[in-house]
Amino acid sequence: MHLPNRTDTICALATAPGMGALAVIRISGKETFPTLSRLFITMKGKSKDFGAVRPYSIHYGQIMEDGKVVDEVLISIFKNPHSFTGEDVAEISCHGSVFIQQAILQLLQRNGIRMAEAGEFTLRAFLNGKMDLSQAEAVADLISAQHAGAHKAALQQLRGGYSSTIRDLRTRLVDFASLIELELDFAEEDVEFANRDKLLELVQELQREVKKLQESFASGNVMKNGVPVLIAGKPNVGKSTLLNALLNEERAIVSDIAGTTRDVIEDHLVIDGIRFRFMDTAGIRHTDDTIEKIGVERTLQHAAKASIIIYLCDPAQSDAIALKKEWNDLLQGIDPSAVMCITVINKSDRFDYDQLLKEYRELPNAVFISAKEGRNIDELKAKLAGAAIGRGEQGDQSIVTSARHAESLHLAASALQKVIDGIHHQLVTDLLALELKDAIYHLGNITGEVYTDDLLGNIFSKFCIGK
Amino acid sequence: MHLPNRTDTICALATAPGMGALAVIRISGKETFPTLSRLFITMKGKSKDFGAVRPYSIHYGQIMEDGKVVDEVLISIFKNPHSFTGEDVAEISCHGSVFIQQAILQLLQRNGIRMAEAGEFTLRAFLNGKMDLSQAEAVADLISAQHAGAHKAALQQLRGGYSSTIRDLRTRLVDFASLIELELDFAEEDVEFANRDKLLELVQELQREVKKLQESFASGNVMKNGVPVLIAGKPNVGKSTLLNALLNEERAIVSDIAGTTRDVIEDHLVIDGIRFRFMDTAGIRHTDDTIEKIGVERTLQHAAKASIIIYLCDPAQSDAIALKKEWNDLLQGIDPSAVMCITVINKSDRFDYDQLLKEYRELPNAVFISAKEGRNIDELKAKLAGAAIGRGEQGDQSIVTSARHAESLHLAASALQKVIDGIHHQLVTDLLALELKDAIYHLGNITGEVYTDDLLGNIFSKFCIGK
Repeated sequence: MHLPNRTDTICALATAPGMGALAVIRISGKETFPTLSRLFITMKGKSKDFGAVRPYSIHYGQIMEDGKVVDEVLISIFKNPHSFTGEDVAEISCHGSVFIQQAILQLLQRNGIRMAEAGEFTLRAFLNGKMDLSQAEAVADLISAQHAGAHKAALQQLRGGYSSTIRDLRTRLVDFASLIELELDFAEEDVEFANRDKLLELVQELQREVKKLQESFASGNVMKNGVPVLIAGKPNVGKSTLLNALLNEERAIVSDIAGTTRDVIEDHLVIDGIRFRFMDTAGIRHTDDTIEKIGVERTLQHAAKASIIIYLCDPAQSDAIALKKEWNDLLQGIDPSAVMCITVINKSDRFDYDQLLKEYRELPNAVFISAKEGRNIDELKAKLAGAAIGRGEQGDQSIVTSARHAESLHLAASALQKVIDGIHHQLVTDLLALELKDAIYHLGNITGEVYTDDLLGNIFSKFCIGK
Repeated sequence: MHLPNRTDTICALATAPGMGALAVIRISGKETFPTLSRLFITMKGKSKDFGAVRPYSIHYGQIMEDGKVVDEVLISIFKNPHSFTGEDVAEISCHGSVFIQQAILQLLQRNGIRMAEAGEFTLRAFLNGKMDLSQAEAVADLISAQHAGAHKAALQQLRGGYSSTIRDLRTRLVDFASLIELELDFAEEDVEFANRDKLLELVQELQREVKKLQESFASGNVMKNGVPVLIAGKPNVGKSTLLNALLNEERAIVSDIAGTTRDVIEDHLVIDGIRFRFMDTAGIRHTDDTIEKIGVERTLQHAAKASIIIYLCDPAQSDAIALKKEWNDLLQGIDPSAVMCITVINKSDRFDYDQLLKEYRELPNAVFISAKEGRNIDELKAKLAGAAIGRGEQGDQSIVTSARHAESLHLAASALQKVIDGIHHQLVTDLLALELKDAIYHLGNITGEVYTDDLLGNIFSKFCIGK
């Protein structure tokens, strides 16, 4: 992948697209101040040398072209290296019509400033050493955060999170690696510059840290993407109606014909600041319908991924004994400690409540609802929120939310394990050196101390324009 | 109408709604600095007294709640009276996720800052004397400007436009009026404090200014709302197809049945920075169909309002002589100097071009097109743009774009005329005083020197929130 030119000056709309009271256009690069000094005059008609003004200052005046006013604006000045990108940066706060936004961006382009590519401001911040790669990724996460969990994880990562720990340990590993390299230079003399006991100690410390972070990814992923909840049950017990009642809108097809919902539908809902990812699937039953069979298989696959399984039943279809068997079928091959089970007895308005309570009370976390009437949906929501606490929330501990970091941690862990094994089995120095390099490489990938253009291209192309 | 409280502190999202790289939240009022001083810490963890910082300065740090970071932000400080509203103002530039925008707005509300109503920042700017009413209205026009004409007119008005002229002349009128009032106090002594010749001179000067502005409203309205273009012609000559070809999309119903388009369809198109408002109407012909009759009548009504009339014809239906008669029918009762006529010969691909040119060359501004094939549509567009220049563009002269101002000017003009007539006919002083008061009132309505809560409520409720 080709990375954009770093030496020219870039601009972009930094605020949301569309009309607002005001809009902000961000400019970064060497030509920022000279260009604005040419285009700007104060309300008294005087020009201003932005290269000479105080940093972090705001200037009120007009953007001019050919003697005509384009807009009255405020310009905020940030001077290199004390800016977001580490370069000279200005933010033009203009009137928020789309017409004016475009007029100013076009004027800047006619003056040799290029439109920024997606994530290019943050890319420059990374390349100029203003933040490491995991912090740069947190910027994108922060902007797209839709609920408290994702926001908290992103903010923690933006402030350094686990990357400073990894960076420190990696630096020490690099020191050892260079001693090992030195040994290779003196291979014939059979010297040992790198104390193997101390190396082992360091690698084990790193390994513990890496494992801890690897384990945090499960809850980190939950914080970022939502707690996965599977809604399972026999056909026609009201799964789609329940999902609609939870979401308060029509989404899935609600029908009286058994087996209507054949594919998996995902929907998101935030309860008490926690995001849930609902999966509504085909009912589980023995069937000859091929399409429905695929649906049933998907249910079982999703059950394995879910943190919470809601098993929905119709008291007219299943008594408590049948229901226990259905739970057992569903949970086959699933680690019971990894999942929270909630039994939801639907259509409860049609039966005697005390009778239902007596019949179904032994089932896991029984809730008696009517999806159609909206009865007890709030109780179910409270149970979901309660179930999620302890699964998503982890205090102020560092949490890995990025699948990319999880992958690098996995690769680093396996390289570190090989180093540990190598030391135990007195592996030849050159092979040990290779494994060390491997671990250093994967750890460096997280913080961006080592990177390829492809990696950067991949990461920053997912950003929005203007960041 | 009830105007909002002016003494409390208000906040709102100032940038467009939705996700962006950054968002700006604006706060105005006495509690702005104390509140932010409580909620903000620098990146080094120190608090800051925003009441004591330099105006027009930017501060980097964190918004905190209960010891937790809500976001990393930049805060811009504007001190009363040198701010948009004339009060203490701060702008928080935060990460642009909707979640963060909402989190900060909610935090501010929990700290006693109220959500601003639509236009409330500009209302405060007006009430605090930062701008007059016509400038305040220009702010809303500027934000909603969608093309160069509207933008230019709004910007001119924002910078004072004609309101300073009106204000000066009105002040002189007020001085005369008080002298006249004085005469009333000494009515029995028959003195004349106000020199009638000088009053006549002033009122005539004002009347000339008001008339000039009244006349500018026609082109001002065009600049703001678009040049009105009527597309007329017999049924089935291709009016809807032509409109679609101009707009490059399917909008009107295109059909081969004569008389399909029965109602007036309005559509907007910007050519060379000039906005056009196209009216496509039922064909003009003698008809027994009641609905179509209404359509024909509407065509004639719209012809009277149009700046440009395109008469579209099918050479197979009308020869040059017939066409001249059709133009005459259409233009009955219309001032020929007020309208630009363009004859568009459609379906020209079916005929010999030289033959057509010879036949129709004497018709006003003949263009030979094929709406269906898109042939010569660009030539027609160029003709439209040419026709509009001189009608919409008026150099840097003051132009009235607001229907409200036009109405006030009309009322002021008629009061001023009564004053002029009164002086000529030596009207009794108390009646003259009444007419003067009336003129002063209507002129003051434009600049906001006199206003009612209803008037302000009406104007500012049309603003967007955050402005």
